[in-house]
Amino acid sequence: MASDWNPELYRRYEDQRTRPARELLARVPLERAGVVYDLGCGPGNSTELLVERFEGAEVVGTDNSEAMLTSARVRLPSVRFERSDIASWQPARAPDLIYANAALQWVGDHGALFPRLFAMLAPGGVLAVQMPDNREESTHRLMREVSAEAPWSTHVADAVRLRTPILALNDYYDLLAGDAADIDVWRTAYQHPMDTPEAIVEWVRGTGLRPFVDALPPDERAGYLAEYTRRIDIAYPKRADGRRLLAFPRLFIIARRRT
Amino acid sequence: MASDWNPELYRRYEDQRTRPARELLARVPLERAGVVYDLGCGPGNSTELLVERFEGAEVVGTDNSEAMLTSARVRLPSVRFERSDIASWQPARAPDLIYANAALQWVGDHGALFPRLFAMLAPGGVLAVQMPDNREESTHRLMREVSAEAPWSTHVADAVRLRTPILALNDYYDLLAGDAADIDVWRTAYQHPMDTPEAIVEWVRGTGLRPFVDALPPDERAGYLAEYTRRIDIAYPKRADGRRLLAFPRLFIIARRRT
Repeated sequence: MASDWNPELYRRYEDQRTRPARELLARVPLERAGVVYDLGCGPGNSTELLVERFEGAEVVGTDNSEAMLTSARVRLPSVRFERSDIASWQPARAPDLIYANAALQWVGDHGALFPRLFAMLAPGGVLAVQMPDNREESTHRLMREVSAEAPWSTHVADAVRLRTPILALNDYYDLLAGDAADIDVWRTAYQHPMDTPEAIVEWVRGTGLRPFVDALPPDERAGYLAEYTRRIDIAYPKRADGRRLLAFPRLFIIARRRT
Repeated sequence: MASDWNPELYRRYEDQRTRPARELLARVPLERAGVVYDLGCGPGNSTELLVERFEGAEVVGTDNSEAMLTSARVRLPSVRFERSDIASWQPARAPDLIYANAALQWVGDHGALFPRLFAMLAPGGVLAVQMPDNREESTHRLMREVSAEAPWSTHVADAVRLRTPILALNDYYDLLAGDAADIDVWRTAYQHPMDTPEAIVEWVRGTGLRPFVDALPPDERAGYLAEYTRRIDIAYPKRADGRRLLAFPRLFIIARRRT
């Protein structure tokens, strides 16, 4: 059963989701840029940041979801948005910036992907990547744990393999360092205060939890979500103000090609 | 042999030094401020950022080192700098911002200190804190490990207790959440590319390593440093470009009082 992204749900947490996009962009060491690609642009919030930062640049957003592209075109009517898969994407002109915020974790084989994207850049161009690194957080551990139990296990046994493995920061550094003028890598663990366990579930439902739920027959989804929510409640206890702190680590990788 | 002035190298380290101070300030949710304190201001680099950001504010820097204050006064002649210990510090007027970049890790009893500083703020005022969180990194683990071995162990057995324990991010959240309008806490692990193991030793020598070395008789210091450097070389292997990645995690805590 096919399901597309839900731009409405995604936008609800846009402020918190835009922070990593801003922090990634803030560290991009470019004064100006001619050609900028926003890979996996989603509804265009990161594309908007790129347009603001690089006045006069040709900014192009790409995504493989038609729903996201439609939403992005409404948001930024003057920007070009193209449907494409990152795995097979080829730029028309060598970009000064390839920017990929929360996108490459959906693309396989990073050992080949990162050097390939980096080689597409114009001399002095920059590859800027941000990816969630939450596979070992309770949110994601519990998705797998519950899906491995009856009755859900018969349907979602392979869901865990739907997202590509993320490498260690050191490995991304090694993949790019040989041809880079500089590299800047870091990992930030944000801590999002959430009002309820249900709010945490809602947060991950738009992204990481989706394949697990989609794999289930409709009449088993509510049961899976109830059991998952029960365990989230335990894993994220109430803090002094009654809220839960959702730890959300992200990797940042910025590499500039030699001129 | 004297080496030539290298502006690019200089800028790289200048950037690494002030980056956490800038990132802390960037997240302070204040449009304007009347009274701003920079606790543990050192030579005034962070104070300068505060003066730039809050035009017209009364900015005061404090430090317990007269040498640092002298240096800061030269840098910013129009700013007031006062000698005081953070543990006993009292502001003349309720501050709109108490900013402490890489300072509170030298002050004891955070369970009492953080609520006390927070209670000093004017209504709607902000406490903004950044501290290194590297006690469990190889740099710091190896300081302790080598100092626990002969012949050094007789001298530095207590050096490990010289810095106050850092709490977990959740604990800082709990200390402030009850009286806060909002709290934002996060942890960033920067990864600094270093040319040699000796450069890593030099980096920590000015701060974390100092008590360990100072505790030794002068004729045992070189041996300790040589053994420490040997283990740093192993703990931080060469990356693809021959450099070492020094992971440096830092905690950030920003809390705003209710109005």
